Amino acid sequence: MHIMVTNDDGINAPGIIALAAALGELGTVTVVAPDREQSAVGHSLTLHAPLRVFELRKGFYAVDGTPTDCVNMGIHSLLPHRPDLVVSGINHGANLGDDVTYSGTVAAAMEANLMGIPAIAVSLATLAFERQGHFDNAARVALGIARQVTANGLPADTFLNVNIPNCPAEEMQPTLITRQGKRSFVGTIIDKTDPRGRKYYWIGSVEPAFNDEEGTDFHAVNRKHVSVTPLHLDLTNHDSMKVLSQWPL
Amino acid sequence: MHIMVTNDDGINAPGIIALAAALGELGTVTVVAPDREQSAVGHSLTLHAPLRVFELRKGFYAVDGTPTDCVNMGIHSLLPHRPDLVVSGINHGANLGDDVTYSGTVAAAMEANLMGIPAIAVSLATLAFERQGHFDNAARVALGIARQVTANGLPADTFLNVNIPNCPAEEMQPTLITRQGKRSFVGTIIDKTDPRGRKYYWIGSVEPAFNDEEGTDFHAVNRKHVSVTPLHLDLTNHDSMKVLSQWPL
Amino acid sequence: MHIMVTNDDGINAPGIIALAAALGELGTVTVVAPDREQSAVGHSLTLHAPLRVFELRKGFYAVDGTPTDCVNMGIHSLLPHRPDLVVSGINHGANLGDDVTYSGTVAAAMEANLMGIPAIAVSLATLAFERQGHFDNAARVALGIARQVTANGLPADTFLNVNIPNCPAEEMQPTLITRQGKRSFVGTIIDKTDPRGRKYYWIGSVEPAFNDEEGTDFHAVNRKHVSVTPLHLDLTNHDSMKVLSQWPL
Amino acid sequence: MHIMVTNDDGINAPGIIALAAALGELGTVTVVAPDREQSAVGHSLTLHAPLRVFELRKGFYAVDGTPTDCVNMGIHSLLPHRPDLVVSGINHGANLGDDVTYSGTVAAAMEANLMGIPAIAVSLATLAFERQGHFDNAARVALGIARQVTANGLPADTFLNVNIPNCPAEEMQPTLITRQGKRSFVGTIIDKTDPRGRKYYWIGSVEPAFNDEEGTDFHAVNRKHVSVTPLHLDLTNHDSMKVLSQWPL
Repeated sequence: MHIMVTNDDGINAPGIIALAAALGELGTVTVVAPDREQSAVGHSLTLHAPLRVFELRKGFYAVDGTPTDCVNMGIHSLLPHRPDLVVSGINHGANLGDDVTYSGTVAAAMEANLMGIPAIAVSLATLAFERQGHFDNAARVALGIARQVTANGLPADTFLNVNIPNCPAEEMQPTLITRQGKRSFVGTIIDKTDPRGRKYYWIGSVEPAFNDEEGTDFHAVNRKHVSVTPLHLDLTNHDSMKVLSQWPL
Repeated sequence: MHIMVTNDDGINAPGIIALAAALGELGTVTVVAPDREQSAVGHSLTLHAPLRVFELRKGFYAVDGTPTDCVNMGIHSLLPHRPDLVVSGINHGANLGDDVTYSGTVAAAMEANLMGIPAIAVSLATLAFERQGHFDNAARVALGIARQVTANGLPADTFLNVNIPNCPAEEMQPTLITRQGKRSFVGTIIDKTDPRGRKYYWIGSVEPAFNDEEGTDFHAVNRKHVSVTPLHLDLTNHDSMKVLSQWPL
Repeated sequence: MHIMVTNDDGINAPGIIALAAALGELGTVTVVAPDREQSAVGHSLTLHAPLRVFELRKGFYAVDGTPTDCVNMGIHSLLPHRPDLVVSGINHGANLGDDVTYSGTVAAAMEANLMGIPAIAVSLATLAFERQGHFDNAARVALGIARQVTANGLPADTFLNVNIPNCPAEEMQPTLITRQGKRSFVGTIIDKTDPRGRKYYWIGSVEPAFNDEEGTDFHAVNRKHVSVTPLHLDLTNHDSMKVLSQWPL
Repeated sequence: MHIMVTNDDGINAPGIIALAAALGELGTVTVVAPDREQSAVGHSLTLHAPLRVFELRKGFYAVDGTPTDCVNMGIHSLLPHRPDLVVSGINHGANLGDDVTYSGTVAAAMEANLMGIPAIAVSLATLAFERQGHFDNAARVALGIARQVTANGLPADTFLNVNIPNCPAEEMQPTLITRQGKRSFVGTIIDKTDPRGRKYYWIGSVEPAFNDEEGTDFHAVNRKHVSVTPLHLDLTNHDSMKVLSQWPL
């Protein structure tokens, strides 16, 4: 059993270290992860420039690219053979609702899924992107889900988006299968002036602000449940096809 | 009627210039686009660094970020008021099937949709990313679809992904409402050596390689139809929820 | 007479446009300049990644690199033949004293000098990097100096660093040949918190703060003289060689 | 005695690890170095964007910037107090002749010198930027020179550029005090096509190609001597001032 691990917080982040250690119980782990933080890069692929790889230590490869690049590099080039499972995370901060489309962590699992490899994205719902959290607990949860994926196989065209509440094991509520929630508010721009007197802009608050509807990932994590959402790559809004076919295009 | 135009090929690309000119017939156009090519950046948001804006000429703003950044900058900061429509493109190369998840062009429309603004992504199906194409024809098609969106409004939670065959108007077939197709093959890595003797890697061929199924975007464009696919942001694979709820998680 | 023009403020900056226009009186001008601002990049050469070129319009090439990269690209690849003169600027802000070692504008002239081509760096002493200035006047001054360089030739191993006061022609004082001054104060770091609550650092004030010694570039410009400093690439402190040779190394 | 160590090959390079270990004999060492390779960045200062710091382990700080940025970050922000010495290296590859103006390793020492702190740049003359070399021997040499700098102090306005032949200790020849040599050949551009059929350019061979003159750094290292060159920041070509003052400017 060979497992490839990646993330978007960078190869030195506590979350990936905890994850790689826990998954070692299930198989041989190879880490291929960005050399720098790559949050919110979405399903971004570096086509315009080359990539470099640096082997930090045995089985730990740092790539100067995105999580999606790492999955490509690992599977097509660095790993001795195709992995049986790709696990991405543990992300510092939840990946919920519409925000999964921004997530580098989720995109890495999406890329593995495109290649036909079972894949799981794992995030810890720390607040305000704080760097401290119950990563050891989250890593145990991730290991449990990875075992189930290995035992049962995933349904066709499906990868998992797992969000874990940031609390000790004893406070954690049972795992729920959820659907992707909806954002209720979208960012702001902060404009400032740099030390040389020039204007710059910073994309602001992306704090969780979701509709608290039952059955959603947000609703579950907000009540200390582990949330497991099955995702696919099909963005088609099938319900709208009929409406549009009435248009005189 | 105010229209914001963006793209991922950069503010100097022929596609965006043709698009902005054509949409001028429908309303006042403001262009907010990346200062450099940003292909395949997906739904990538720059949270880790600030952004800079350069007004190249009246109504043309270059941003040193991604298409998603441009939509944020335009709507939250640069435009005098909220636009009635966001159009992204005309991309040099099709955005079809699972590849829409990589597309910066599609992500810009996705971002506008998240903000509740009607949005269209437009791509010209040039081969091998060639820079030449029937952009004037494609711009006329985009204008026609923009008029329909304005006249009818879009269904809830829907933005459009439009792909136009690269041919003269007289060869073009009627517009079809399609679903997102599926990739049949995923990239390769090319490894090379730089002039200083160091290894580097380049993510290789991403040429269209889709299942040629009827009803898909790929099937339509491949036969010189204009393809219009209604998309949303919900990645949930609802069919898999039932299966997963049987798991002992 | 063929002249290559570059800068570090980017190909759309007012300074380079004024310079290219004025030098048109002296010969055929080709502009090869960075697509984005590249201030304070020093003599930085992109060896680790490839470069891209975009021809914005006839004779105007944007490169996604540093001023030093632009000189290389222009001379080894883009220009039809080796230029007779390279002029870099007009920089928005002075390049004085020890700060010339940080300057991308000066580095471009340095690179041309390394290749054996007469070279001039031109800067306008606007304050606080303000974007407005007497660029037309400065461009006339640059043209005059370029004529002299063409008529007389430059001494061996010499390129020129020209700083022009930001004032109307009638207030400008005669040109002085100067030596490089000395900084009296070196920067600060400003630390801040980004919208996600993470710390970042910004290298602070680099406002001119030089010893106001007679004979220096700073002293001249500070009194509205045009300053012309002959530079070379030799950083050896010859006076120290004797001292060091006493050491028991 | 507090020593700050930096480099341009990145914080994980063998050269900086050997250097930091050896200098531990002389005092307390803090490493502040780029998180990625930053070769040939010259005296480049990041003014346009903020910097991030990541403490990899106690006393090892990775910065997402240039060597010059690292010196600023270390001295103005990260170190508990001003260091007594800054040592930059051990660079993988020599820094000789006119090429010192490109060198990030040399620029870091230059920056410390600007701040009034004794500074040494150390490079190992490996060929073709190969990653293997006699770093332990070079680190012993660097320690010896650091001891001398501490014992004697450096002459005013002087920092040292040290180049060490890549050979075992027993083959090494005595240390020579040298002057900066001259390049005899300047690069090329290689143009290629990327996997998507687009042209790109790579700045080519920068292999040592210097005039082999006695007394120069190149001549010394080429004969297996350790070369120590005293440098300063004054680029003025004083000999040319007289010639230029005859011009009718």
